[in-house]
Amino acid sequence: MTDIELTSDLTVELVQQVGDDAAIARAARVSTGADKTEHDFAANAKLISYLMKNRHGSPFEHNSMTFRISAPIFVIREFMRHRIGWSYNEVSARYKKLEPRFYVYPERRPLVQSGSSAHPDIQAGAPELTAKTNAGVTKAYQSSWRTYEALIKQGVAYEVARTVLPVGIYSDMYATCNARSLMAFLSLRVDEAESTFQTKPQWEIEQVARQMESKFASIFRATWDAFDLNGRVAP
Amino acid sequence: MTDIELTSDLTVELVQQVGDDAAIARAARVSTGADKTEHDFAANAKLISYLMKNRHGSPFEHNSMTFRISAPIFVIREFMRHRIGWSYNEVSARYKKLEPRFYVYPERRPLVQSGSSAHPDIQAGAPELTAKTNAGVTKAYQSSWRTYEALIKQGVAYEVARTVLPVGIYSDMYATCNARSLMAFLSLRVDEAESTFQTKPQWEIEQVARQMESKFASIFRATWDAFDLNGRVAP
Amino acid sequence: MTDIELTSDLTVELVQQVGDDAAIARAARVSTGADKTEHDFAANAKLISYLMKNRHGSPFEHNSMTFRISAPIFVIREFMRHRIGWSYNEVSARYKKLEPRFYVYPERRPLVQSGSSAHPDIQAGAPELTAKTNAGVTKAYQSSWRTYEALIKQGVAYEVARTVLPVGIYSDMYATCNARSLMAFLSLRVDEAESTFQTKPQWEIEQVARQMESKFASIFRATWDAFDLNGRVAP
Amino acid sequence: MTDIELTSDLTVELVQQVGDDAAIARAARVSTGADKTEHDFAANAKLISYLMKNRHGSPFEHNSMTFRISAPIFVIREFMRHRIGWSYNEVSARYKKLEPRFYVYPERRPLVQSGSSAHPDIQAGAPELTAKTNAGVTKAYQSSWRTYEALIKQGVAYEVARTVLPVGIYSDMYATCNARSLMAFLSLRVDEAESTFQTKPQWEIEQVARQMESKFASIFRATWDAFDLNGRVAP
Repeated sequence: MTDIELTSDLTVELVQQVGDDAAIARAARVSTGADKTEHDFAANAKLISYLMKNRHGSPFEHNSMTFRISAPIFVIREFMRHRIGWSYNEVSARYKKLEPRFYVYPERRPLVQSGSSAHPDIQAGAPELTAKTNAGVTKAYQSSWRTYEALIKQGVAYEVARTVLPVGIYSDMYATCNARSLMAFLSLRVDEAESTFQTKPQWEIEQVARQMESKFASIFRATWDAFDLNGRVAP
Repeated sequence: MTDIELTSDLTVELVQQVGDDAAIARAARVSTGADKTEHDFAANAKLISYLMKNRHGSPFEHNSMTFRISAPIFVIREFMRHRIGWSYNEVSARYKKLEPRFYVYPERRPLVQSGSSAHPDIQAGAPELTAKTNAGVTKAYQSSWRTYEALIKQGVAYEVARTVLPVGIYSDMYATCNARSLMAFLSLRVDEAESTFQTKPQWEIEQVARQMESKFASIFRATWDAFDLNGRVAP
Repeated sequence: MTDIELTSDLTVELVQQVGDDAAIARAARVSTGADKTEHDFAANAKLISYLMKNRHGSPFEHNSMTFRISAPIFVIREFMRHRIGWSYNEVSARYKKLEPRFYVYPERRPLVQSGSSAHPDIQAGAPELTAKTNAGVTKAYQSSWRTYEALIKQGVAYEVARTVLPVGIYSDMYATCNARSLMAFLSLRVDEAESTFQTKPQWEIEQVARQMESKFASIFRATWDAFDLNGRVAP
Repeated sequence: MTDIELTSDLTVELVQQVGDDAAIARAARVSTGADKTEHDFAANAKLISYLMKNRHGSPFEHNSMTFRISAPIFVIREFMRHRIGWSYNEVSARYKKLEPRFYVYPERRPLVQSGSSAHPDIQAGAPELTAKTNAGVTKAYQSSWRTYEALIKQGVAYEVARTVLPVGIYSDMYATCNARSLMAFLSLRVDEAESTFQTKPQWEIEQVARQMESKFASIFRATWDAFDLNGRVAP
C-alpha cells in the first residue's frame, strides 16, 4: 500500500518585499523634479490613480515582492507563462526525488464543463461528483507513485523516473515580481465582474492569485484601490 | 485494453524565419553609419566574429525564427524557463482533450544516475534496462490515460481530468526566438566539450536543442561559426 | 559660416518582416490542436478579433518587423523607453563623427503649451511663431555644431566633443518588434479619439508611430482592424 | 550673462533594497527542497560560487535595488540600452523646464582618441587640454541655455524648446534592477583587467557603474566575490 499525501492546499507565503505606494509616487514625481518632496497618503493616492487611469506603467516597477508558492505542477505551468517582470526558482525533479504530495479537489471547486470547448464554463456537478472524481484521481496518483518508486529502485535516474508523475503532484517555487507585473498577472488570473477584460482562469491558479492579491492590497493600498476601481487593467 | 501511442520522437520544424548574417552585420554597421553599404560574406563574418568576441549582443536580435516543437511536457517545462526573447503558444489541456501520445526512452538514452544529486551524471545502464524501464513507464501511462478517459466520461471538465496525466505525455508548441535568445538557450541546453561554461542539460531537451541548432547553423552560417569557435557563450 | 542641414523629415522604412494574420491565427490554434488546418481570411479575422477582445496576447508575438528610423535624438530617447519585445541598434557618437543634420519644426506642428504642466496640451501659435522658433533653434544648432567641430579639431575624442550636441540632431536606428510589442507602442504613441486610454504623445514620435502603424496595418489587416475596433489596447 | 551650473559630479544614491546572499542561496536551494534550512555565510558563499561558475542565473533575481542617479543625458542614454531586469523613471523635459546644470570634464578624465574608430582608445591629452575643452563646452552650453530660455519666453512649449539642449545637460532618474541584471550591466560598463570579455565603456558611465558596484558589493558580499573571481561574466 503506497502512502501518498492528498491535499487541496494552495499556499502562498510572502517571503520578502520592498517598496510601497510612496515609492511608486516618488518614482513618478521625478518626471517633474518633485521626487524629493514628502507627500501624504492622499496626495500619493491621487497621483497613483492618475497614473493608473492614463496607463503610465513604469513607476509601478520600483518595488519587489518574493512569494513562496506550493501548488500542483499544472498551476506552476500556467504561472510560468508570465515572463516579463517575473523571476522563478522551482523544485527540480532532476536533482531530487519528489515528495508524494498530490492535489485533490475540494468540495467547492466546480468540476463540470459547459459552454463550448473554446469558451469553457465550469459548473458545479452532482453532490457526489467530487468524491467520485477524487477516488479516481487518487487511484491514478497511487499507481503513478508506485511506478516512480519502482523505477528509482531499479536504478534509473530521478529525471527518467519522473516521466510517469502526474501534473497533479505538488511543487514549490519562489516567484518574484513587482506591482506592475503582478497586476498584469492578476488581470488575467482573477475573474472579477468589474474587470474591463473578461478572463476565465482555472480555479486553482485563481486561488493562488487571490492570495497574492490580498497580500499586495495590504501593502500597496492606494495602488490596489486604483487598480480595482479602474477595471483591473494593468498599467 | 487502452490504445495509447508510444514514441521517442522529439520533433522540431522551422515554420518561418527572417534575417540572416547580412542583417546582423547591417544592424551592427548602423553604429558607424555604414549600414547602407553592401559587404560580402567574408566582411560580414569578420564583423560578426568581432561582435561575438566582444559581447556586442544587440545586433543579433534583428531576426526571427518560429519553430513548431512536439515533445513531452517535461521538456516543454524546461523550455519555458527561457523568458527573454522567446514567445510561446502551446496545446491547452483546458480547451481540448489531449491525444494519447506518450514518450518512451530510446536505446541510446542513458538512464542511470551517478555522481551526487546536485551534480547528476547520467550513464548507460545494463542492456535490458531500457526495455524494463519502458515496460513500467508504459503501464503507468496506460493506467493514467484510462483514468483520464473515465473521468471525462463521468462528466468532469478536461482541466479537471488532466490532473492525472503524466509529464511524459506529448504536447505541441510554437516557439519564436531570435539568434541572440537562441544562442542563450543553446549555451545551456547543448553540452559540448568546447563550451566555456559546462552545462548538463537533460538528454531530451538537448535533442530538441541540437535540431534547432542545426537549422540555425544552416541559415546563420557566420554567426554559428563565431558562436561555436568562441566558447558557445551567447553574446 | 557653418553648413548644417535642416529638415523636418521623420522617416520610417520597413527593412524586413515575417509573419501575418494567418501566422497569428495558426499559433493561437495550436491550443486546440487545429493549427495544421487551413483557414480563410474571414475565419482568421474572427479568431483574431476574439483574441484581441479577451487579451490573449501571446499569439501576436510570432512575427517580426524590422524598421530603419531616422529621427532626432529626443524621439529616439522616447522610443527606447519601450523595452519588451523591442530590439535596437543606433548610430554611435562614440565611434563616428555625427552628420550635421538637425530637426526644425514644420508649419503644421503645434508649438504653444496650454493646460497644466502635468497635463500639457499643445496648441498652434501665431502664424509667424514657427519661423521665429526655427530661427532661434537654427542659430543654436549652428553654434553647437561649430563647437563640436572645433573640439574635434583640437584633438578630443568624438565621445567627448558630443556633449555639446543638442537632442535635435538626427540619429538613425534599426528597431525590431512584433505585432504585440508594436501595438503596445502604438497604444501610447498615437492619440486617437477611439482609444480606451487617453494618451498625449509628443508630436514627432506620433508621426513616426503613425508611419509604422500604416505599414503594420497593410501586412496584418485583420489584426489591425481588431486593434483599432477594440479601443486600441494592446492584447 | 547666463547663469548656468557646471559640475563633474556623477551621483548614485541607493534608495531602497531588499534581498542578500542568503536570499539568493535560499532561492537556489528550493531546487533540492532545502530552502527552509538555515545555512551560514560560508555555506551560502560556496553555493553562490557554484551557481556563478555554472551560470545558474535565476537565483540571482530574487532581490531588488533602486538607485537614484544624476548624470548627463549622454550617460542616461547609454544606461537605458539595458532593458531586461531594469526599470526606469526619469525627469521629463516635456513636463518641466530643465535645470541649467551641465557636465564639464574633470582633470583625470582622458580626452584624446587613439586607436581606430571602431576600437577607440582614449588617452590623456596635453595638461591644458581639459581647461581648453571645458571653455569651449561651457560657451556652447551657455548659448544653448540662452536659446532655450528665450524660446520658452516666446511662448513655445518646453518640449519644443528642449530641442536645442545638449546631451551634456543633467537629468535624474530612478533605476531599479536585481543582482543578475546589475551584473550584466557591470560586465559591460566596468573595464577590469580580469574580465573574461574586454569592454570599453565610456568614462562617465563607468564612474556611475563603479559606484553602483561598490554599493552592490557591500550588500551582496559573496555574490560580488564570486562575480569578480570568475571573470565578471553575469550568470
